[in-house]
Amino acid sequence: MARTRSKSFWSKYHERWNNTKSLVCIGLDSDYKSLPSCVLTDHNPQYTFNKAIVEATSAYALAYKPNLAFYLATGVKGLEALKLTIELIPEDIPVILDCKVGDIGNTMQAYIFACFEEYGVDAITINPLMGTDVLLPLLADERNYAFALALTSNPSAAEFFQQKSLAASIGNWIGAFPVTQLGAVVGATQTRQLSTMRNLMPDRLFLIPGIGAQGGDLTAVIHHAVKNQHEPEILINSSRGIIFADKTANFAETAAKEAQKLRDAIKEEL
Amino acid sequence: MARTRSKSFWSKYHERWNNTKSLVCIGLDSDYKSLPSCVLTDHNPQYTFNKAIVEATSAYALAYKPNLAFYLATGVKGLEALKLTIELIPEDIPVILDCKVGDIGNTMQAYIFACFEEYGVDAITINPLMGTDVLLPLLADERNYAFALALTSNPSAAEFFQQKSLAASIGNWIGAFPVTQLGAVVGATQTRQLSTMRNLMPDRLFLIPGIGAQGGDLTAVIHHAVKNQHEPEILINSSRGIIFADKTANFAETAAKEAQKLRDAIKEEL
Repeated sequence: MARTRSKSFWSKYHERWNNTKSLVCIGLDSDYKSLPSCVLTDHNPQYTFNKAIVEATSAYALAYKPNLAFYLATGVKGLEALKLTIELIPEDIPVILDCKVGDIGNTMQAYIFACFEEYGVDAITINPLMGTDVLLPLLADERNYAFALALTSNPSAAEFFQQKSLAASIGNWIGAFPVTQLGAVVGATQTRQLSTMRNLMPDRLFLIPGIGAQGGDLTAVIHHAVKNQHEPEILINSSRGIIFADKTANFAETAAKEAQKLRDAIKEEL
Repeated sequence: MARTRSKSFWSKYHERWNNTKSLVCIGLDSDYKSLPSCVLTDHNPQYTFNKAIVEATSAYALAYKPNLAFYLATGVKGLEALKLTIELIPEDIPVILDCKVGDIGNTMQAYIFACFEEYGVDAITINPLMGTDVLLPLLADERNYAFALALTSNPSAAEFFQQKSLAASIGNWIGAFPVTQLGAVVGATQTRQLSTMRNLMPDRLFLIPGIGAQGGDLTAVIHHAVKNQHEPEILINSSRGIIFADKTANFAETAAKEAQKLRDAIKEEL
């Protein structure tokens, strides 16, 4: 059954934070090549895997974030797995499709329709390089929400993001749009810049990848990104560190333990 | 039957230019909402439409460029239409998937696999904001090719692209990678900047959208983007101006006329 869209991402985020005190976003980067062998004989291994992961971890998740790339890579069956996965996630848990799309006009309208209507997610990630034209079709529906790439943690991010303070320009640009519809992706390994970005965008939601497999330091991240422990306005994403922590038939149990561990570690730092 | 990948995009582009003297790229932006009503009762209207368009226009096309957004928007059936469309395009006509992806590491690997292996295209468009990490998985196979967004023609492009000469930075960045694997998307409505970009990247292939529906001036585009009429190193894209020129049952015939007209108009300007 398709998810309804009775509430905005912004509402769902805050309600779920109040109800669970978790800030964990679980990245469903369910790369076919990395799936545990026990699911490979199923009809749709990516869906079987995701179903087990979601059922085991949902108590510890503020949100889930499937990444489009891993579902495109397995063709039509992959998109079926993506759709079924999104439908099985309980409605009060927001789903962010990580697709980093950035196009304009009728093309961006088609992406917005695809993500929010056809696949039924609550939020997406966008690439802001083409400017405000990227955002316009998204802003047309107040329930829609996007995280714009503002500063990423990969080695070559310095080539453009840090160059000529493009990150600050993007930060200022994000600040001009409704706080209820636009947040920022800010990499966890750039902890000093996290402070700069928080000062530029005091009330924005930050989606922070790079904890776990990519080596971000949780203590420093919380210190730099959170101004008010009661309204932290962050989501800490971990993908492989949770879903692929164990490749045996116990993968889902282990994922639940890792998700719980991350939730508790964040609580302690707040 | 899936397309083989016996030749690189770079080879296919130059062979097809030599054989056809066409520089036309036909954008398969087959938005479901804009399809002629005569195809809507078919099992997969987007595929039926594309098949008729490709069969009618292939003599005038150097390349085809489907845009991922319009196929994602129609769910699993849309991806089926995309895959079947790519398979029906003759192997000597290169196919560019317009997806403007830009991610890193295993995610970018998954996109590369999806585009070049699963869907079997010859080239893609990429968003370079995250830097060289975006390119590394693509460069690993010498047949792969990408057009990086270097300067776009939308109104808000000025917010980041023109600001602080980011376009020039991206142009220089593109110039550091193999000419046989990386080209540039350069918007047609910024004709003066086209000259600047051509001077920065004298030997690169330019994919030039914005002719037709977006209003670019063909004479000015050719004048600024082409240095050598025998090796023009450009692709002029038109999407809606060709495929949606006529919404009656004659849509494919009209598309062929429009494609031929554009091919001939370019020839005259060279």
